[in-house]
This record gives sequence, structure tokens and C-alpha cells, in this order.
Amino acid sequence: MERHFDEELKTLYEDILKMGVMAQEAIYKSIEALKNRDKMGAKEVIDSDDKIDRLELVIDEKCIDLIARHQPMAGDLRFITTGMKINAELERIADLAVDISQRILELVDKPILKPLIDIPKLSVIAQDMVRDAIDAFVKKDVALANKVVLSDSDADKLRNLVQDELINDYMAKEPSTAPRAVPLLLIARHLERICDHATNIAEDIIYMVEGKVIKHHPEELKK
Amino acid sequence: MERHFDEELKTLYEDILKMGVMAQEAIYKSIEALKNRDKMGAKEVIDSDDKIDRLELVIDEKCIDLIARHQPMAGDLRFITTGMKINAELERIADLAVDISQRILELVDKPILKPLIDIPKLSVIAQDMVRDAIDAFVKKDVALANKVVLSDSDADKLRNLVQDELINDYMAKEPSTAPRAVPLLLIARHLERICDHATNIAEDIIYMVEGKVIKHHPEELKK
Repeated sequence: MERHFDEELKTLYEDILKMGVMAQEAIYKSIEALKNRDKMGAKEVIDSDDKIDRLELVIDEKCIDLIARHQPMAGDLRFITTGMKINAELERIADLAVDISQRILELVDKPILKPLIDIPKLSVIAQDMVRDAIDAFVKKDVALANKVVLSDSDADKLRNLVQDELINDYMAKEPSTAPRAVPLLLIARHLERICDHATNIAEDIIYMVEGKVIKHHPEELKK
Repeated sequence: MERHFDEELKTLYEDILKMGVMAQEAIYKSIEALKNRDKMGAKEVIDSDDKIDRLELVIDEKCIDLIARHQPMAGDLRFITTGMKINAELERIADLAVDISQRILELVDKPILKPLIDIPKLSVIAQDMVRDAIDAFVKKDVALANKVVLSDSDADKLRNLVQDELINDYMAKEPSTAPRAVPLLLIARHLERICDHATNIAEDIIYMVEGKVIKHHPEELKK
């Protein structure tokens, strides 16, 4: 019985990692599609979301089923409920990659507004944060989770930079740029929200390992 | 022991309802602040978010504690894990009311761009959807939850209408409107995301009551 539970817990763990890899791939592919103005690539991200949605439901069911059948002790229970939360965050990250891809489809037939510099930078931050958050979960690594939480303000700053530039240097100067500037502005916001979800994952891990609530209070980490 | 568990479950239930009321108030107050260009009102919404964040953590802890101490059977377990999900959705709804309030602070010292018509309409849809989702939870009312899920496409349409108007009739025609049009566009998007979270709650309730997965597949309801 005990052995069986451990095996099921391991499978759950692997499923969550798989979900993490799929979410990371979705971000990567959506930004590649943006850089290459690749309509097919953007559509692939949108189409593959069904698979991620299905995996989310499977993981969620497994978690509830594991709790119901094995009535795990505090530590394992906390691991499983944290898994449920990470699962939901990863599904939302994949959804945001779909949102990015939809913005790309709005852009791709219009002339290029400007060379992309800060958006790819922001996408690197987002991908690093998601990768580190998953890694922190695998290794129960609180230091790495802390790093993710602290990176979120870099993402906020870069998002604001992109937004201010698009509004003040493009839309406010040249009205005809709005239908191209708005999708770019939204892509920057989608990326920043991906960073928020990675931060949520990192906060859940810190709580799982240390029992310390830093959620809603990232400033605590700097002390 | 059994009696005690039922009482704790009831307290959990009441806490979630309280969280729902606080989230609804945050939306209502933020849109009132928008209509009245009320800086203080917007700041109040931002300040009160701390209280909602704290309640979220309390509810989350209660849920895990309840599962750990009482090892509830399938039906109660499903109720508690659904409560955890609804709790997280309500916290995000309140966060979006904060986002709306921050956009209001960006707008309030600038001249009015246009009379507000569709954004207040969208906010009514959002508030109705959140209220109905909470009601559906209280009454375990699947028909009402279905209604919430089906309302989401109205919210999408209205959001797109607001966005297209702001881009094509304002920003693309009169460049200087961009710094006022963008916050309005974002407010419409924040409201539409509130509707998405209400939809998530409704889907969780349908699953809790009927065990039917309609998540990611609202079209199933129309059959």
C-alpha cells in the first residue's frame, strides 16, 4: 500500500513536470512565431492548447483521487495541494501563450512597426522564471524560488518600458500605428502575466518547503 | 467529532462567501470610482486588497487543515478542494479590481476622452457573473452556473467592441488620445478577465455537483 502511494506520487510529480515542459514550449514557440512572423507557428501554439487543458484535468483528478484513497499525512498532503496549484498556474501560462499567438495573427499581415528588442528580452525573463520555478519545485530549492519572486519586478519594469514607448513614441505621434502598437502592447502584458504566474508557483514552493507565507509580500525576501 | 467537522465546513463556507462579497465590492467600487473620476475611491480599492489577500491565505489554510485532520470522504473532499479553487479565483478577481483602480489613477487627471457607455455595461455583466457564480455555489445550482458560463461570450463581444472603437475611432484618428485610450482599453480587458474568473468558478461548481467536465468546452452546454 505504502509503496503504491509513493509510486502514484512519483507519477503525479512527473505529470506536473510534463505540464511545465509543455507550458515552456508554448511560450518559446509563440515568441519564435512573433520574431519570424510565422502564422503557422502561432496557429500550432493555439491548437496545442487542447492537449495542455486535458493534462490539467488529468492531474487535478489524480490529486483529488490520491487524497481520497490514501488520506496522506501533512507533508504529502501539502505536496499534493501545492501540485494542484502549480498545475492551475501552468495551464494559465499556456493560455497566455495562446493569447500571444492570437495577437501575432492580428499583426502578421500588417507592416512591421519597429524592430523587436524589449519584447524578446521580456520573453527571456518569462521563460527563465517559468523554468526556474519548475526547477525549484523539482529540487525543493527555496533559494531558486526566491530568485524567481525577486525577478518579477524586472519583468514589471520592462513591461512598463515597452508600454510607455508604444504609447508615447508611436501611438501618440503617429495615429496610424495604433492597430499594430496595441497588439504589441498586449503581448508585453501577456508576458508579464506569465511572470506573475511563475511568481505564484515560486511562492507556493516556498510555502510548501518552509511554511513561510511570502505571497503578496515579496518585499519580505529582501530583508 | 462528526458534528465538529460539519461546523468547520460551515465556517469555511461562510468565509468563502465573505471573500465573494469582498471581491464583488471591489469591482463595484472601482467602477464607481471610474464613473465619478474619484481618486480616493480608487485608492480605497487598492488599499483594501491586503485584507482580501489575508482572507485568501486563511481560507487556504483552513482547507488543508480540514483535509489533514478529518480525512473527509469523496463528496466533502470535493467540496473543500472546490472551495480552494473558488478562493483563488476570487482573490484574482479582487486583484483585477486593483488593476482597474490603478488605470483610473492614470486617467483621472487627464481630460475625459468620451462618455463611458460600454465599459459600465461590461462591468454590470462582470458583477452579475460574479454574483451568480457565488449564488450557484451557495445553492449548488447547476442551471445558474451554466448561465454564468454562457454569459462569458457576451463579455468577450463587448470587450472587443470597446477595444475596436478605442483603436479605430480614437487612437488611429487622433494620436493625442492614446495615453487616455490605452487605460480605458485595459480596463475593458480587466473586466473581461473578471468574467473569465467567474466562468472558472461556475465550471468548478458544475464539476463539483455533476462530476461533468465542461471546463475548456463551454459549447457542450448549448447541446
